[in-house]
Amino acid sequence: MGMMQARRPVLAVTVGEPAGIGPEISIRAAWALRESANCVLLGDAAFLALTASLIDPAIRLSALSIQALRNGGLPHFGKDRLAVIDVPLAAHVVPGTLDAENGRAVLATLDLAIEGAQCGWFEGIVTAPLQKSTVNDAGVHFSGHTEYLAEKTGTPKVVMMLAGQPGGGQPYLRVALATTHLPLKDVPAALTREALAQVIDIIDADLKAKFGIAAPRILVTGLNPHAGENGYLGREEIEVITPVLEAARARGIDARGPYPADTLFQPKYLQDADCVLAMYHDQGLPVLKHATFGRGINITLGLPIVRTSVDHGTALDLAAQGLGQADCGSMIEAIRAAMQMAASRRP
Amino acid sequence: MGMMQARRPVLAVTVGEPAGIGPEISIRAAWALRESANCVLLGDAAFLALTASLIDPAIRLSALSIQALRNGGLPHFGKDRLAVIDVPLAAHVVPGTLDAENGRAVLATLDLAIEGAQCGWFEGIVTAPLQKSTVNDAGVHFSGHTEYLAEKTGTPKVVMMLAGQPGGGQPYLRVALATTHLPLKDVPAALTREALAQVIDIIDADLKAKFGIAAPRILVTGLNPHAGENGYLGREEIEVITPVLEAARARGIDARGPYPADTLFQPKYLQDADCVLAMYHDQGLPVLKHATFGRGINITLGLPIVRTSVDHGTALDLAAQGLGQADCGSMIEAIRAAMQMAASRRP
Repeated sequence: MGMMQARRPVLAVTVGEPAGIGPEISIRAAWALRESANCVLLGDAAFLALTASLIDPAIRLSALSIQALRNGGLPHFGKDRLAVIDVPLAAHVVPGTLDAENGRAVLATLDLAIEGAQCGWFEGIVTAPLQKSTVNDAGVHFSGHTEYLAEKTGTPKVVMMLAGQPGGGQPYLRVALATTHLPLKDVPAALTREALAQVIDIIDADLKAKFGIAAPRILVTGLNPHAGENGYLGREEIEVITPVLEAARARGIDARGPYPADTLFQPKYLQDADCVLAMYHDQGLPVLKHATFGRGINITLGLPIVRTSVDHGTALDLAAQGLGQADCGSMIEAIRAAMQMAASRRP
Repeated sequence: MGMMQARRPVLAVTVGEPAGIGPEISIRAAWALRESANCVLLGDAAFLALTASLIDPAIRLSALSIQALRNGGLPHFGKDRLAVIDVPLAAHVVPGTLDAENGRAVLATLDLAIEGAQCGWFEGIVTAPLQKSTVNDAGVHFSGHTEYLAEKTGTPKVVMMLAGQPGGGQPYLRVALATTHLPLKDVPAALTREALAQVIDIIDADLKAKFGIAAPRILVTGLNPHAGENGYLGREEIEVITPVLEAARARGIDARGPYPADTLFQPKYLQDADCVLAMYHDQGLPVLKHATFGRGINITLGLPIVRTSVDHGTALDLAAQGLGQADCGSMIEAIRAAMQMAASRRP
C-alpha cells in the first residue's frame, strides 16, 4: 500500500478550445507537476508538440493514438515526458480566432476523457476552458462541461463547487451552489425543498468520498438579504431552507443555517466550515474569486468520476497576443485538487 | 486656509442601542482618535460616564445639555476630553437586554444629530448600531438609519455604499448597491431604468463632492450570472442596465459595464475603479465583508449631510459578556471616513 500511495495519479487533461489559452496552460501545468501527477493531455498531438516547443524546448511529449489506447490501454510513461492522446483537429489554429470546424474535435477530447475515466485508464479528469459557441456552431448542442458530463455519465443531478486558497492565512474556501446558471428572476422558484435536499446530500457524500472528510461541516446561506430577517425580507428561509436543513440534520448531516451571506463569508465563521452552500451564482462566486486571486478551481460534485477545472474562460484576447501571457495558476490548482481527490478514492 | 485644514472636524457620534456594544465602541474609537477628530457623543451622559470609567479611568468626558447646545451652540472642547450631549435614557441599562422604554431616547440622539448637522454644529454624523425592534416597540415606525435620515432630511433617494481596506495590498474597495433590503424575488422588478439612473447620478455626485474624486470611475455589475451572457441568462442587462450606462456616459459620467459580478470583483479590475455598483445586497456585500475583516463601514450617499456608520449590528451577546469583548475597528474606520468626507466638503 505504501507503494500505491506514492504512485502518481493518472489524470486526463482536456486542453480545451485550441484558439484559447487552454493548450498553453495545460502543457505548462502538466509539465510543472510531472513529478507528482501523470497528466495525459487529450488534444491534437502535432499542435501540442508545436506549442510545447515554443513554450520550452525542454518539454518532451509522447503521443499515442486513440486506437492504440483502446487496443492496449495506457502504456507506462516516465516522469521525463508528458503523454498525449492524439485527437486531431480539423482546421489550422489561429490563436484568438474561433473556428467551428474544430468544435467536434474539442468535444471528442471530452468524450475520450469520460470513456477513459469510466474504464479505468484515468483516475480523474481536468478540463481546460472551451468555447461553448464553437461546439454549438459545429452542430452539437452543448450548454457546458458540467451539464455534458452529467448527461454522458447518466447522473441526474450534479453540484458545482468552487474552491481555492485565500491569501492572508485564511482557511481554504469551498463554495457550492444550490442553483447555477439561471436568470436571477428564476432563482427563487428553482429553490425547491427537493432540489435543495439533493444538493446537500451530494455535497455531504462527495466531501466524504472524494475529499476524505469524515464529518463534513456545511454552512448554508439564506436566499434573501439578512437571511430573510425572520420573514420580513422574504419567506424562503422559513418555508424551504430551514425545513430542509432540519431534515438533513435528522439524517445525520452537519448542515447549519440559513445564515446571512454577508455575515457568513467572514473568516471567523468560515474557519468552522468545510463547505459553504450558497443559494445562487452571484451570492457565492464573487467572494470566492476575489479571495483566491484567479487561483480558484471548479469541481463537479455528484459525478461517478473525479472532475476539476479552471475557474476562468478561454481568454481569446490573451491567446491572440501569443504564448507567455496566460497564468497557469488555476490549472495547477485544478490538477492538484484532482490528484488529492483521486488519492482519497483509492481503496 | 492652512489653519482650516488642520482644524479637527466636529462629528456627532450617536452611541446607538445602550444595551449593545455601541456605547463602548463609540467611546473607545472617539477617544483613540481625539487628536484628529472632535467627536461629540450623543447619549445618556451619566451612563456614558460610567461606561467610560470602566473602560479606562483616563478617559475624560464633558457633558452639555441639549438646551445649552441649542441656546449657545457647541462650545470649544480641547483634545484632552470628549464632549457629550446629554440625551437621557428612560430606563436602567442591562447590557445585552433590550428595553423598549429606551427606544425613544435612542431615536432622539439621531434627531439631534440631524438637527446639528443641518444647523452647522456638526460636519458629519457617525452612527453606532441601534436595534430597530426597540424603536418600533417604543411606538415609532423605524425601518433603518438610512431610511430615517432620508426622510428627516427630505431626501427622495439615497444610496447605500459599503467601503473598506482589504488585506494583502489590494486597492481600497467601495461597493454601492442599486437595491438594498428587498426579498430576492422582488429585485428584478425594482431595477428600473429610472431608479438605476438616479443611483448612478448620486454616486457620481457624492464621490466628487464628499470624496474629492474629480472623475469617479464606476464599474457596474450585471443583474444575472455572467451579466446575462448576451441574453441567454436574463435580459435585464440588455433592456435596463446597458441603456442606462450609455445614457450616463452621454452625461459625462464614467460608468462602465455591466460586468459579471464574479469577474469584476478581482483585483485587476478593481484597481481601475473608485466604486463598484452592485445590483443587490448579496451580490455586493459578501465580498466586501470578507475582504475587510470586520473593518468595513457603511456610508449613505445622496444626503445633504455626511453620514457614516459601522457595518455590524448591536452584538447584544458580546455586550452581555461585559466590556472589553467588542472590536471598535469598524467604528474607528467610520469616524475616519467621516473626517475625510467633512474635509473634502470644506470650501
